[in-house]
Amino acid sequence: MKDVQSERDYRNIPLKHVGINNLKWPVIVKDKKNGTQNTIATVSLSVDLPHFQRGTHMSRFVEVIKELKSVSPKDIEGMLNDLKEKLDAQVAHCRMEFDYFIYKPSPVTKIESPYDVQCAFEATKNHEFDFILEVKVPVTTLCPCSKEISEFGAHNQRATVDIKIKSDKMIWIEDIVKVAEESASTPVFSLLKRKDEKWVTEMAYLNPRFVEDVAREVAVRLEANKDIKWYSVCVESIESIHNHNAFAYTEKGMME
Amino acid sequence: MKDVQSERDYRNIPLKHVGINNLKWPVIVKDKKNGTQNTIATVSLSVDLPHFQRGTHMSRFVEVIKELKSVSPKDIEGMLNDLKEKLDAQVAHCRMEFDYFIYKPSPVTKIESPYDVQCAFEATKNHEFDFILEVKVPVTTLCPCSKEISEFGAHNQRATVDIKIKSDKMIWIEDIVKVAEESASTPVFSLLKRKDEKWVTEMAYLNPRFVEDVAREVAVRLEANKDIKWYSVCVESIESIHNHNAFAYTEKGMME
Amino acid sequence: MKDVQSERDYRNIPLKHVGINNLKWPVIVKDKKNGTQNTIATVSLSVDLPHFQRGTHMSRFVEVIKELKSVSPKDIEGMLNDLKEKLDAQVAHCRMEFDYFIYKPSPVTKIESPYDVQCAFEATKNHEFDFILEVKVPVTTLCPCSKEISEFGAHNQRATVDIKIKSDKMIWIEDIVKVAEESASTPVFSLLKRKDEKWVTEMAYLNPRFVEDVAREVAVRLEANKDIKWYSVCVESIESIHNHNAFAYTEKGMME
Amino acid sequence: MKDVQSERDYRNIPLKHVGINNLKWPVIVKDKKNGTQNTIATVSLSVDLPHFQRGTHMSRFVEVIKELKSVSPKDIEGMLNDLKEKLDAQVAHCRMEFDYFIYKPSPVTKIESPYDVQCAFEATKNHEFDFILEVKVPVTTLCPCSKEISEFGAHNQRATVDIKIKSDKMIWIEDIVKVAEESASTPVFSLLKRKDEKWVTEMAYLNPRFVEDVAREVAVRLEANKDIKWYSVCVESIESIHNHNAFAYTEKGMME
Repeated sequence: MKDVQSERDYRNIPLKHVGINNLKWPVIVKDKKNGTQNTIATVSLSVDLPHFQRGTHMSRFVEVIKELKSVSPKDIEGMLNDLKEKLDAQVAHCRMEFDYFIYKPSPVTKIESPYDVQCAFEATKNHEFDFILEVKVPVTTLCPCSKEISEFGAHNQRATVDIKIKSDKMIWIEDIVKVAEESASTPVFSLLKRKDEKWVTEMAYLNPRFVEDVAREVAVRLEANKDIKWYSVCVESIESIHNHNAFAYTEKGMME
Repeated sequence: MKDVQSERDYRNIPLKHVGINNLKWPVIVKDKKNGTQNTIATVSLSVDLPHFQRGTHMSRFVEVIKELKSVSPKDIEGMLNDLKEKLDAQVAHCRMEFDYFIYKPSPVTKIESPYDVQCAFEATKNHEFDFILEVKVPVTTLCPCSKEISEFGAHNQRATVDIKIKSDKMIWIEDIVKVAEESASTPVFSLLKRKDEKWVTEMAYLNPRFVEDVAREVAVRLEANKDIKWYSVCVESIESIHNHNAFAYTEKGMME
Repeated sequence: MKDVQSERDYRNIPLKHVGINNLKWPVIVKDKKNGTQNTIATVSLSVDLPHFQRGTHMSRFVEVIKELKSVSPKDIEGMLNDLKEKLDAQVAHCRMEFDYFIYKPSPVTKIESPYDVQCAFEATKNHEFDFILEVKVPVTTLCPCSKEISEFGAHNQRATVDIKIKSDKMIWIEDIVKVAEESASTPVFSLLKRKDEKWVTEMAYLNPRFVEDVAREVAVRLEANKDIKWYSVCVESIESIHNHNAFAYTEKGMME
Repeated sequence: MKDVQSERDYRNIPLKHVGINNLKWPVIVKDKKNGTQNTIATVSLSVDLPHFQRGTHMSRFVEVIKELKSVSPKDIEGMLNDLKEKLDAQVAHCRMEFDYFIYKPSPVTKIESPYDVQCAFEATKNHEFDFILEVKVPVTTLCPCSKEISEFGAHNQRATVDIKIKSDKMIWIEDIVKVAEESASTPVFSLLKRKDEKWVTEMAYLNPRFVEDVAREVAVRLEANKDIKWYSVCVESIESIHNHNAFAYTEKGMME
């Protein structure tokens, strides 16, 4: 059969990315506590395409991901090397988004239950291997202004802390979650008995945080970790008093 | 050209709905204050198909909606009558989901600004015409339990009050929004200056409501309106202390 | 601490559903071939609330789901019984939506690869136990009208076949997927080599199907299965020639 | 009342963006044919925040957007200047996503009907004003490989052409849509009578395009327009034979 994809292209336009996306795939992720965790990734895989080739071979992306056993940075680098080889490409790229469960005891009654954080691995292999870990952590923020100006109460809400990092060493998802939770008014929990709810309510009130505060608290903690070469943080709160959200963003290098 | 859709079908399976959906369409909706409001609807249109006909004629749905000028219940009934005639159907059905803006002054400084509520019209024309108005109103809920058991503060969050009604008389979207807002801890606003934020914070604290409370407060108000023949209400709160939501649902007829 | 939820309510409004939703939870589902499959469910859990009680106890829903080991109909019935007991309720309700992977060889080269179908379990326990299995299967539809009226080619597209069934006997997700795929122009696959793509292209062309045809083909197959007491089927195609979709719906009992 | 936001911050972390997002707002956009078009934008507005200030004043973002009459690049630049002044910021940023309707006659019967394209304006005002127009156009792609290797037929599907451009001169949304449609196998239409459907089916078959082809055809056309200083194009097809998508991306500067 004719290989239409391998035809010569005369339009002289190189493509930065060609590939597949929105591919759901079962994956096994490293878990700090339990060794591994089964989850489902939404995957994007691509390579560059030189100006002289008409098309890539889309079925090979699925052939390559079929070989993937678990998804550590090293496994992903191996997969990207395979992609480059099988598709005769200079650069290969991968993004995997997945739910990941954190098991955490409630603050007073110490009942453990899971809650999910949305994570992503984003990796590029050129000559170098570039790997970004992304973790979106749900937390509570309580508004310092609302507390200050009101006789009683303070508006608060669920917020998301979206942290991206690059590091030469393995950084656990669990450790990024900890950074986010320490930086917020309080963490969220799946299961809170009445004593726990009292603790969470009072802790949030004693610990008011703007989205700006949370972003800076995260940045301070990430700056202190010498293994982290780059980070960004975006905090977004589902404002309880508005029908829109508030957000704050910073990244490594803003301080210099 | 051959009309494949009109072929005789021998499988003996009548279809309840055949039609189109996910059609974005510009529409003009009646506005209580300003006469009309331009918005964009996501539309589903369908008819029944008897067991002996192979397919419907999909292009006629778009021909019919092209004739629609504005979208009052009466206009929609007219469109459904056209659909029944053009497609030789017994029943025609329509659902239109759209954003609608409410213009409301802030509570203290009285600065007016818009915020959106998500609405839907759902209509069926058989012999009778059946019309449901749906309005999803964002509000604030403050947890009565959290307030009661804590020394200070109380968790609160954005919540959505989803009200559906049937009525023989015209009911304005604005009036359903009012019912939802009166039933919550406080309304939400797009623009709050500091004096307004103080008012909203304190009002919510003085007015704690479970999702169960809000659902019942809405039901009490809707029961009192003799024009409303049927309603349902679903209140869902984006819990600030959890990564999941809480909800409560009731509907007309539960009391009997 | 005071139990605010247990206060007497005087508004005289019973609630049909109170509970939690949007809870992500790791679950283990029965797999016809491999015994079990790990996946992640988005869960809704609720009970009824009598008119005289102010609120339900939301933390107990999470306590109950923590006890769930795997999610067969029997396990879910057990969980709903627990919910009724722990919350002193008459009716308990559960909905779990999850991705499920089907492993299928390509049609010619027989290379196996997984693709996901979106499933749901929806269960209610009153005196009786009512259980609905829902499976949304991606397929290809090729338009019979376009084929008939055109000199060459025919528009085709990805479509979704959404099947819901009630049965007294265990029905495997895999068997519902088979019904959907046999009813379409062709199945979809994750990995197709050139010989497979030729097969799929030609098969679709030889096998044109309106959404109406697919819905009826599914209905004919489900009617023939005497274990199935009730079903509904909705077929929706992402029309390649429009920016909207076409759909067809039928359900058990339309034929009588 | 105390202005908590204006407190001095000692954490030494400047923030790149602080502001609001997910704000729905009614806007009026310039229309090439009809002068203006009413639509609804989902808005993000932000400014930078220096390391020494604790928080921004979130209500001022809404005050500033309230003054916006229509949304040309010039109007948006004015709004960003206001934001910089009111919030004493160095940089102001805006993103508005909205549906926009194109009115187009069908190819043979020439019946005009609207279909929507998703657009965005993304603007930054520092010393310079930077403005990106984004238009996502639905089209049809027919696979050249499938056509070549098959006896009859060829798989085809809806695809999206996502084009972003920077230009010193006003570029109409309508003109970007035209570029996308000329580059695809065929355009999509809201209303096609049988003669139109024949035309579209045959045209697509005569005009097979990989996502790679469409991306390059768009690039060739945009390179030829000397007003366009920068562009990117991402073509994504909802593959009719898979449950995942294929995509191709290129941008200005790849050729050098």
